[in-house]
Amino acid sequence: MQGQNQQQAYDRGITIFSPDGRLYQVEYAREAVKRGTASIGVRTPEGVVLVVDKQTRSPLLEGSSVEKLHKIDDHVGAASAGHVADARQLVDFARQQSQVERVRYDEPIGVRTLTKSVTDHIQQYTQVGGARPFGVALLIAGVEGGEPRLFETDPSGTSNEWKAVAIGSNRGDIQEFLEDEYDAGLSVDDGIDLALRALNEGREDALSGDGVGVGIVDADTGTYRELAADESQSYIDDIEDAADDSDDDDDEE
Amino acid sequence: MQGQNQQQAYDRGITIFSPDGRLYQVEYAREAVKRGTASIGVRTPEGVVLVVDKQTRSPLLEGSSVEKLHKIDDHVGAASAGHVADARQLVDFARQQSQVERVRYDEPIGVRTLTKSVTDHIQQYTQVGGARPFGVALLIAGVEGGEPRLFETDPSGTSNEWKAVAIGSNRGDIQEFLEDEYDAGLSVDDGIDLALRALNEGREDALSGDGVGVGIVDADTGTYRELAADESQSYIDDIEDAADDSDDDDDEE
Amino acid sequence: MQGQNQQQAYDRGITIFSPDGRLYQVEYAREAVKRGTASIGVRTPEGVVLVVDKQTRSPLLEGSSVEKLHKIDDHVGAASAGHVADARQLVDFARQQSQVERVRYDEPIGVRTLTKSVTDHIQQYTQVGGARPFGVALLIAGVEGGEPRLFETDPSGTSNEWKAVAIGSNRGDIQEFLEDEYDAGLSVDDGIDLALRALNEGREDALSGDGVGVGIVDADTGTYRELAADESQSYIDDIEDAADDSDDDDDEE
Amino acid sequence: MQGQNQQQAYDRGITIFSPDGRLYQVEYAREAVKRGTASIGVRTPEGVVLVVDKQTRSPLLEGSSVEKLHKIDDHVGAASAGHVADARQLVDFARQQSQVERVRYDEPIGVRTLTKSVTDHIQQYTQVGGARPFGVALLIAGVEGGEPRLFETDPSGTSNEWKAVAIGSNRGDIQEFLEDEYDAGLSVDDGIDLALRALNEGREDALSGDGVGVGIVDADTGTYRELAADESQSYIDDIEDAADDSDDDDDEE
Amino acid sequence: MQGQNQQQAYDRGITIFSPDGRLYQVEYAREAVKRGTASIGVRTPEGVVLVVDKQTRSPLLEGSSVEKLHKIDDHVGAASAGHVADARQLVDFARQQSQVERVRYDEPIGVRTLTKSVTDHIQQYTQVGGARPFGVALLIAGVEGGEPRLFETDPSGTSNEWKAVAIGSNRGDIQEFLEDEYDAGLSVDDGIDLALRALNEGREDALSGDGVGVGIVDADTGTYRELAADESQSYIDDIEDAADDSDDDDDEE
Amino acid sequence: MQGQNQQQAYDRGITIFSPDGRLYQVEYAREAVKRGTASIGVRTPEGVVLVVDKQTRSPLLEGSSVEKLHKIDDHVGAASAGHVADARQLVDFARQQSQVERVRYDEPIGVRTLTKSVTDHIQQYTQVGGARPFGVALLIAGVEGGEPRLFETDPSGTSNEWKAVAIGSNRGDIQEFLEDEYDAGLSVDDGIDLALRALNEGREDALSGDGVGVGIVDADTGTYRELAADESQSYIDDIEDAADDSDDDDDEE
Amino acid sequence: MQGQNQQQAYDRGITIFSPDGRLYQVEYAREAVKRGTASIGVRTPEGVVLVVDKQTRSPLLEGSSVEKLHKIDDHVGAASAGHVADARQLVDFARQQSQVERVRYDEPIGVRTLTKSVTDHIQQYTQVGGARPFGVALLIAGVEGGEPRLFETDPSGTSNEWKAVAIGSNRGDIQEFLEDEYDAGLSVDDGIDLALRALNEGREDALSGDGVGVGIVDADTGTYRELAADESQSYIDDIEDAADDSDDDDDEE
Repeated sequence: MQGQNQQQAYDRGITIFSPDGRLYQVEYAREAVKRGTASIGVRTPEGVVLVVDKQTRSPLLEGSSVEKLHKIDDHVGAASAGHVADARQLVDFARQQSQVERVRYDEPIGVRTLTKSVTDHIQQYTQVGGARPFGVALLIAGVEGGEPRLFETDPSGTSNEWKAVAIGSNRGDIQEFLEDEYDAGLSVDDGIDLALRALNEGREDALSGDGVGVGIVDADTGTYRELAADESQSYIDDIEDAADDSDDDDDEE
Repeated sequence: MQGQNQQQAYDRGITIFSPDGRLYQVEYAREAVKRGTASIGVRTPEGVVLVVDKQTRSPLLEGSSVEKLHKIDDHVGAASAGHVADARQLVDFARQQSQVERVRYDEPIGVRTLTKSVTDHIQQYTQVGGARPFGVALLIAGVEGGEPRLFETDPSGTSNEWKAVAIGSNRGDIQEFLEDEYDAGLSVDDGIDLALRALNEGREDALSGDGVGVGIVDADTGTYRELAADESQSYIDDIEDAADDSDDDDDEE
Repeated sequence: MQGQNQQQAYDRGITIFSPDGRLYQVEYAREAVKRGTASIGVRTPEGVVLVVDKQTRSPLLEGSSVEKLHKIDDHVGAASAGHVADARQLVDFARQQSQVERVRYDEPIGVRTLTKSVTDHIQQYTQVGGARPFGVALLIAGVEGGEPRLFETDPSGTSNEWKAVAIGSNRGDIQEFLEDEYDAGLSVDDGIDLALRALNEGREDALSGDGVGVGIVDADTGTYRELAADESQSYIDDIEDAADDSDDDDDEE
Repeated sequence: MQGQNQQQAYDRGITIFSPDGRLYQVEYAREAVKRGTASIGVRTPEGVVLVVDKQTRSPLLEGSSVEKLHKIDDHVGAASAGHVADARQLVDFARQQSQVERVRYDEPIGVRTLTKSVTDHIQQYTQVGGARPFGVALLIAGVEGGEPRLFETDPSGTSNEWKAVAIGSNRGDIQEFLEDEYDAGLSVDDGIDLALRALNEGREDALSGDGVGVGIVDADTGTYRELAADESQSYIDDIEDAADDSDDDDDEE
Repeated sequence: MQGQNQQQAYDRGITIFSPDGRLYQVEYAREAVKRGTASIGVRTPEGVVLVVDKQTRSPLLEGSSVEKLHKIDDHVGAASAGHVADARQLVDFARQQSQVERVRYDEPIGVRTLTKSVTDHIQQYTQVGGARPFGVALLIAGVEGGEPRLFETDPSGTSNEWKAVAIGSNRGDIQEFLEDEYDAGLSVDDGIDLALRALNEGREDALSGDGVGVGIVDADTGTYRELAADESQSYIDDIEDAADDSDDDDDEE
Repeated sequence: MQGQNQQQAYDRGITIFSPDGRLYQVEYAREAVKRGTASIGVRTPEGVVLVVDKQTRSPLLEGSSVEKLHKIDDHVGAASAGHVADARQLVDFARQQSQVERVRYDEPIGVRTLTKSVTDHIQQYTQVGGARPFGVALLIAGVEGGEPRLFETDPSGTSNEWKAVAIGSNRGDIQEFLEDEYDAGLSVDDGIDLALRALNEGREDALSGDGVGVGIVDADTGTYRELAADESQSYIDDIEDAADDSDDDDDEE
Repeated sequence: MQGQNQQQAYDRGITIFSPDGRLYQVEYAREAVKRGTASIGVRTPEGVVLVVDKQTRSPLLEGSSVEKLHKIDDHVGAASAGHVADARQLVDFARQQSQVERVRYDEPIGVRTLTKSVTDHIQQYTQVGGARPFGVALLIAGVEGGEPRLFETDPSGTSNEWKAVAIGSNRGDIQEFLEDEYDAGLSVDDGIDLALRALNEGREDALSGDGVGVGIVDADTGTYRELAADESQSYIDDIEDAADDSDDDDDEE
């Protein structure tokens, strides 16, 4: 109880430090990320894969309108987890930064540069009063100088580069799965497969082509595209076939 | 009791995160939506239907002055639920966006683009201090490239596209009814019928032509219009006849 | 007790939502309206009648200086209930809007358009911080395209159009009286009579020509004028005569 | 006790409504008016009389520096009660309004127009945050179109026109005295006499020419002037003589 | 205890009214004045005398640097009591006003006009939020049209004109002494004498030329000057001689 | 308990003094520094060494993206400890200052001048309201006039120059180690060795080339560079060999 | 306990008066000064001496980087005690004022004028909201018209001129020592000696050339310079020799 009262003392008004040096509003914003459905990124030599859980709550909802995958520029895509409307703000900000860079230098923005712009923007909302932090995390995937790159932004304004990473609900389990199964030499197809299987770990319902989103940045072409629902479904079918086989194997052991 | 105190700690001043990552002011604004009478949208291949509950409290009140249906542009209409004056602000904002787009590009604004403008506007009121969130949800119905489209905005600034959806009082029951009865091949007449029957589910009083509002965006003509009270009444009469028949049927089973 | 504490938590600083989606400052502003003496509007085919209770507290007070009836434009008048100085601000705002419209379009402002301007202004004070809501309700009466119209504005920024309506002290009883007695085919004289009798319902003291104000927007001439005290008195005398007769009748039953 | 706590909840920060629709800061400002010494206005057909209580606390204080009577314009004077420095602000504001009007229209400002400017200014301090209300009431006396006029402003921004009125300390008793004794056909001399006698009602000490201030707006000349101390003293002497006579009479009864 | 809690409720944030119409922050600022050492002003037909108590706490402190007497303009001086740095702000403000007036009208500012400027400035800090009131009182002494004038400003922004007055520590006793001993026909020398004796009343330590400051505005020359420490000392010596004589007399009684 | 309550009273809103003259928000920001992994600076006659602990939490994380070492200019590098996004803001600020200086004076910025700019920027966030202090400390290493220099900035805006210093987690033990082992005549290689051994003191896990970052400002060339992971590893190997030898020695004693 | 609660009520948000007329935030800022190591100023006919305690906490810290002595202009130096980063702000402000004055009038700024600028700046932070007071005191030493001058500024914005004065830790004892030992006819060497001995009074550790700073403004040359560590050491050695002698003497008594 005492700890809880102490905690309440630091979460009002502007974002300030607690006696142990924490920023509670930022930590609570991280909780908002965990309340969002999961998004997964996997980097392979051939490109970066983004897979998102769209979990539509009603059959009458158009899955395509669930904002979890976002095209930022020709060569960059993003997946989000957390507060949906906040994600849209950051995505808009990222798109503007990309266009400004193109106009100014006549070349595509670097993925790292873009990520830095976004996280600087996020940081301001954790230090200056009059607004709350952004309650969303992003995976920013792109190609830079032919190299696939995958960055994560968090509500504190920190960014990290990953080989494979999960954000949102059930992050712990999914990340553990990725660490067990990730291989540096994956093909893009393997990457999609890995991400879908990882997503499946953290879900009770079965996956469906409508219920997930898959985005790919291809290293060769340097372009981002999103799979159609039936394309996604065929990957899911493959996993399930493999899982059935695997179950059989398990039984035999 | 303890939970209530904890909750109170997060609902003052600007909109900030609670320890579990929620924005209470946004959630309370959703409660303001639930306090409003219901509005229903149904998308059919022929167009989108909006039906609103106008429940006039006094026989001396002019039903036509109850602001629940709003024309946004020639090809877009909206239905609202929640805080009436807030709805008017958002509707005005949407109208301005439509006109700006027409002037700038000499063509009607896309329904999705319009919805995004509105939800970006809503989001600002959930992040920046000095104002409360909007206590209203909108259904934005329109035709875009010949395609009927139906979007919902909520107080967090999230938007979703729906085949059929309800906002406001008794949303749960009405949405369930829509999920049971909705059919992708409905005519506009069927859509009105469905929406009125769904609205009837959540009411104690009988429906009347004066007590409901019906708006239609026609896919062919690409124009929004609202039915007169007697037009609405004739649809209600049809439902009641059918209901009587249905009751008879029920008795026989 | 518990409910009261909960309520207190939401009424400080800027206007924010309570957990059940209410805006307490707006509701308290409605209480300020109820603390004001009553004003009544009655719409007839011949024009709109406004009757206000001026209840002068001292014989030395000039009744004509009690600000309850306000000329907005040649064709529009208003009656207020609640915080007197707030009413004056809204009335000034309405007059400016009328003049701006005349200058811009060279024609009188529509009554509905005018009401919308006023309620938009009111709404801002319920959403943006740094000011309290307006503690006043207005009845806006006018002629638009030859049609008599009667609107009510409330402290939330909602407007409604009425056939007959009361604001301020004792609203409930007076409104009930109006609903019982209102007839769509009333003459203006009948309307004044109805409004005065309704006002009488909610008072302990006898009515007097000095103690009430009567404003009329005539549908034919499209102009607003206020009755002199002796004109008002003669209407009151008629009512009292009728009431005496009616008392006799009552005795006989 | 409970009522007091409830009250405290509404008097901090900006001026907001209490659950029963009151503005406590405005009501407290009215208390500040009551803490000031009394000022009295009496309107007669010949002009308006202002009488103020200057109660100098020390024989070393220059009574002439006690700011209770204020010349606003050639044809307008004012008397104040309450927070002295606040009064000076409003008086300065009134003087500026008068000069602006003269420059703009080349004629003296109307007393009612002037009063409205002042009360609009006062109202702003009761609605917009960041400042407290004015803790002062004014009596504004002037001649408009040959007619003597007497207005009162209060801390809410409400104005009223009076035949005779008191503000400040002991208002209740003085006002009652005025209601008993006021006569519409008074001469200016009678008016001074009435006001001084009324002021005497609410005092323990004897009146003196130094301890009161008398201002007169003459209807004929349309000018405001203040009496010298010896002029005031002679009026006081007359009253005392009359009072002695009256005492004799009383004794006889 | 209860009274104290109630009081605490009104002294935070901006300056607001208490339920009994008081401005606690202003009253507390008056306490800050009382915490300052005393300053005394005495007006005589020949000029105005200002005497201040400089009570140096350490022999190493340069008494001349204690800011209690301030030259405002050639013909105006001031003495302060209370918060030293606040006094400097007001003195600077007064000097600027004097210079502005000289530049604009090419003549010395009136003492009353100057005092009004200063008190208007002070009043703003008691009404508009975001700053605290000035914790200082001033005695403003000058010559206007050949007439000696002596004004006092207090933290509320009120000004009063005095024949003789004290501010700061022990005001009550000193003022009483002044009222007993003041004579309208004093010479300037008598005035210095009176002020020094009055100051002596409220002190435990003996007066010294270093420990007091004496300023004089001469009515003939219309100029302000401050006495050197030895000049002051000679006045003190005279008093002490007189006091010794007087003590002898007392002994005899 | 009492002390804790007292402490809570001073850590909300803007940064203000506690009764004992402390700025709690600044002290809490220092706690945020301690929560960060350690960074160490060692100054030698040949140049300055920066060693940082990158402790990657997951094998999938790219160690190179952990922002602990920062190039500021050709001749200046920095190491940070604490809030990562805050560090990036200060590093960006430092880079801008360096470029401005180059453009303005056409020569590299002095290390001391640069440090002062940064700490002035930090100080503003501890005095002016509306933002929290920076939760980060920096070690700024550079060459100025051929001289190696090493500065530390802390969240209060204080800077100090050091021969060798540690910031972040476990600072106390590491600093003690540095004080015991530091020698003014170290080579750069010795400096790296010392810093790595000091870092090892404060860790449970073994050091690795990936898990640490090493930056060097060379006094001769006046340039900053960061070691590759394998270069770092070879230094670590040397230490471990030496440690093994040393362990043997220890055993023998 | 009661006193403590009362005190807490006045130290939040902006700087406001307590019921007894105190500004707690300013008093707490004075505590911040007392937390700083001591600085001493001694004025002699030959010039002004500033001596500061630099107490380096670690042998690895460069004593020269401890910011306690500051050159303001050729003819002015300053010593600070309290919050280090705040001191730097005031010193920068003072330097700018000096340069502005030189540019504007082509002559060195007066020491008193400079001090006034600084204290006016300090005062603003005690009256206007949105920032805390400066937690630092300065000794400003300079030559003005050939005269040595020594001023002290405190966190309230008050300045005083001194013959000899101490600020910071242990002020009381050091000041008492200065009052006992100060002599108006000291040489600069004597002044350094006096200041160092005074500093020694308030310390447990022995003084060292590295651990103190000595600044001198020479009256003849009108220039400020700081002693090197070995120069300071030789003064310390002299004192210790004298102290040893003195101890012998003491023993004999």
